[in-house]
Amino acid sequence: MSTKGLYVAVVGSAACTPEISELAYRVGFEIAKRNAILLCGGRQGVMADAARGARDGGGIAVGILPGTSRSEANPYLGIALPTGLGDARNAVIACAADAVIAVSGGYGTLSEVALALKKGKPVVVLAFTFPQIPGVYPAKTPREAVELAISKAVMK
Amino acid sequence: MSTKGLYVAVVGSAACTPEISELAYRVGFEIAKRNAILLCGGRQGVMADAARGARDGGGIAVGILPGTSRSEANPYLGIALPTGLGDARNAVIACAADAVIAVSGGYGTLSEVALALKKGKPVVVLAFTFPQIPGVYPAKTPREAVELAISKAVMK
Amino acid sequence: MSTKGLYVAVVGSAACTPEISELAYRVGFEIAKRNAILLCGGRQGVMADAARGARDGGGIAVGILPGTSRSEANPYLGIALPTGLGDARNAVIACAADAVIAVSGGYGTLSEVALALKKGKPVVVLAFTFPQIPGVYPAKTPREAVELAISKAVMK
Amino acid sequence: MSTKGLYVAVVGSAACTPEISELAYRVGFEIAKRNAILLCGGRQGVMADAARGARDGGGIAVGILPGTSRSEANPYLGIALPTGLGDARNAVIACAADAVIAVSGGYGTLSEVALALKKGKPVVVLAFTFPQIPGVYPAKTPREAVELAISKAVMK
Repeated sequence: MSTKGLYVAVVGSAACTPEISELAYRVGFEIAKRNAILLCGGRQGVMADAARGARDGGGIAVGILPGTSRSEANPYLGIALPTGLGDARNAVIACAADAVIAVSGGYGTLSEVALALKKGKPVVVLAFTFPQIPGVYPAKTPREAVELAISKAVMK
Repeated sequence: MSTKGLYVAVVGSAACTPEISELAYRVGFEIAKRNAILLCGGRQGVMADAARGARDGGGIAVGILPGTSRSEANPYLGIALPTGLGDARNAVIACAADAVIAVSGGYGTLSEVALALKKGKPVVVLAFTFPQIPGVYPAKTPREAVELAISKAVMK
Repeated sequence: MSTKGLYVAVVGSAACTPEISELAYRVGFEIAKRNAILLCGGRQGVMADAARGARDGGGIAVGILPGTSRSEANPYLGIALPTGLGDARNAVIACAADAVIAVSGGYGTLSEVALALKKGKPVVVLAFTFPQIPGVYPAKTPREAVELAISKAVMK
Repeated sequence: MSTKGLYVAVVGSAACTPEISELAYRVGFEIAKRNAILLCGGRQGVMADAARGARDGGGIAVGILPGTSRSEANPYLGIALPTGLGDARNAVIACAADAVIAVSGGYGTLSEVALALKKGKPVVVLAFTFPQIPGVYPAKTPREAVELAISKAVMK
């Protein structure tokens, strides 16, 4: 693990279908296989599945939690950080990421996509819930999503 | 002015065309005419035009600024609050508003729309830049936008 | 009211004795009499007493609340802003103030004092709970506290 | 490394003397030796020395940075997270820590101490710059500081 490594955020809903869960897992796994650090919101659903994938791929997942307690963290995180910021933690995730991959997702996910785009970070969407936002890169598979995210990522 | 009054946020870009500027001004004016308090990001463009409209309508505009200095505020605000939070101030605007009106807008605007929707706040869009997001109320005129926002607003 | 006006934050505990309550009220009153805008944390205790003083002095009090709901605001605020930031809103108060007056106070108050000092804002303490922090200005009366705060305030 | 591990924040100035630098290094080293995760502000001075100590002790340091760029991080961090929050990131550090150790320190450090105390987290001070704050635990050596912090830490 290295500070010089890439940080790829995986954003998505705290509740999701088995199909989306599987996509998120594979995204997390592919991120770990490429030695990038996975960032996420630290909770359940897409966040937990991606973190589990990263763990199984031999990588590390960092969860940036909205609340004040580590007890809301999913069990697959290597690092769990309660922020107490509520939804403002979405801006922290967008700030800390070199690239963002949105999997399905709700309004919180959309805010993370928009905040990342505002900061000039590349955003890849997979099975995205919303109409396509100008500037995002659509992907068809987890592998394509991760490859796109990493190739577009600009180290800050 | 009363704490019991409604707070309507007007969100949009720091740079805009004369047409969008006029829409934003009229939105601000209509908000003031209905005795609601206008919230905005405090800077130029749509934020300044809406604040100017509120002032001309006899109301008050509150600007929630991203930086650490009041010098970045537009001159039409009654209250200007530097937060030092950067883009995380977008979550504060969404939190403090009872309803949000987006006029045209860039990625920052989209993030405010998404954060407000996440919090269950009504969001009205006018000349919106982005594909329509499920759950927002489209409006055709400033007056319609303000009337929709106020009628849907739920006091928190 | 003018954006060009001074913003003086009054910080202190959500619970306080009648003596401290009276001091806070008089600090708020004196701030309003000098046409400065009062900032506070928006809740009970010192925050409410200072806001009531500002209202009675013909001024305006702005409350920057930690939670997500306006219902936690005291009834004396002209503007009440739920931020959803939790204790991180203390940094917003310190950022938005041109000067800070601490009345008695707990750990949260101490954090606001420290954050304001870090930003180079003048800090005046009145009946302060803590050992004197280097760099703060102690005052003996509400009037002295407000006069010191305003004279030392540097417009940002 | 485990989410179930303790997170100990080391807070202090971005500039410090060689003596304070050595204390911070030893604090970081002792934290790592006890398998706790070190949190810090991610920058220079005490933050960098503690992170270097953690690295040399076989542990990991997580830096929670105030700015928007990873380039302000010190080179000893395992995880570096730019937040873009400015000084409000101090509240995030206090929130994410199970215990805090302050080494020397300036006003920012004092704010982190106060925010941690407000959240009910144990705070240990070593060569502290400020008058003793009620509720903190003074320590005489890095080892004593770390032992105190860990024994008092309450898992959240």
